Amino acid sequence: MVLRRADVVDGALELLDAEGLDGLTMRKLGAALNVQGGALYRHFPSKEALLDAMAERLLAGVGAPLPAEMPWLDQCREMAERLRVQLLSRRDGARVVAGTYVSGPNTMTAGGRAIELLSSVGFPPEEAAWITFAFFYFVLGHTIEEQALVRLDPAHGWEARLAEAQPVPSPALASAMLAMAKADPAERFRYGVRLFLAGVERRLEELRADGTSGV
Amino acid sequence: MVLRRADVVDGALELLDAEGLDGLTMRKLGAALNVQGGALYRHFPSKEALLDAMAERLLAGVGAPLPAEMPWLDQCREMAERLRVQLLSRRDGARVVAGTYVSGPNTMTAGGRAIELLSSVGFPPEEAAWITFAFFYFVLGHTIEEQALVRLDPAHGWEARLAEAQPVPSPALASAMLAMAKADPAERFRYGVRLFLAGVERRLEELRADGTSGV
Repeated sequence: MVLRRADVVDGALELLDAEGLDGLTMRKLGAALNVQGGALYRHFPSKEALLDAMAERLLAGVGAPLPAEMPWLDQCREMAERLRVQLLSRRDGARVVAGTYVSGPNTMTAGGRAIELLSSVGFPPEEAAWITFAFFYFVLGHTIEEQALVRLDPAHGWEARLAEAQPVPSPALASAMLAMAKADPAERFRYGVRLFLAGVERRLEELRADGTSGV
Repeated sequence: MVLRRADVVDGALELLDAEGLDGLTMRKLGAALNVQGGALYRHFPSKEALLDAMAERLLAGVGAPLPAEMPWLDQCREMAERLRVQLLSRRDGARVVAGTYVSGPNTMTAGGRAIELLSSVGFPPEEAAWITFAFFYFVLGHTIEEQALVRLDPAHGWEARLAEAQPVPSPALASAMLAMAKADPAERFRYGVRLFLAGVERRLEELRADGTSGV
């Protein structure tokens, strides 16, 4: 049986779910696929190359077409939601994507769609790229933290950590942090997206008003 | 000589600079500090506990007092800059902090200062905590990507990756992405901070106008 490149990526994503990113090694992947190391290295000369391919796979569908009649801010929101769902779809998915530099079709289509969408409403293309990446960084940071929550020892969770905090937080601060820790991450994500997009909207108004580019 | 907890953290941060996060092991750290594993585990029962202590150290000074006469948006900007500088101060520093849940003094002081600052201008404390964390996620995502740039093979950089991209990007898209890739990350960071804070400002105006809480 010929081991195809896509089979290696499939196997790597399954191993990722089972072992997490720290447990993903070329050796274990070879064992899981029942092949010698050489067969993997033929497709992926390094673990970095494999991670790039995994990241590219994780971005599938993020840049799929959106209804043209959907307001542009809703289109931005929708792409952010898709990206979050995809990054969360595999254990440590956000950490896999963080720090990869991929130019595969899923990644290029997603980035391209966002940049073109922002350009279409009036941002200069370069500024549209800056916005796209800034937004991407927020999604990435959020999902990395979301996925790390599962590693948090339930016997030593937020309550315990806040109780032992030094300096002792004020009651207002402690209750704000605790309420946040208990909130639904999906809701906090939507809130962050809303904040960010409110800033994008304001920037666009500024551009329209004075016709300058801030980049 | 007694090995103090702070010595272990010092040694771990030096090893981090030398080896990167993936190369940081308790075994190597024991060797670098010239102690048996047991001496480390007395201070840190697990690598996670050590990473928490490293993250806490990395946040030193982020929550230091700011001039009271400084406008609140400038105070937010200043804290973001401090956080970025601290995360970049050690190799893979941003990845160390990502996914840790620390209640040490540096972390609590930084989080507390941001939440109190936002509360002082009119955000309900819980919403102030949501904003603080959303902002933190952006800084984290940005710095993780910044630090990953150094791992990008110079012989296979952005130009090469864009040149081989599928689907072939439009000339406008390719040039926007290339311009972004060549831009100073510090400038792109400031731009992202500005966008985000413009959204925070707009949200505050909304709160003041209708007196509701959006969380």
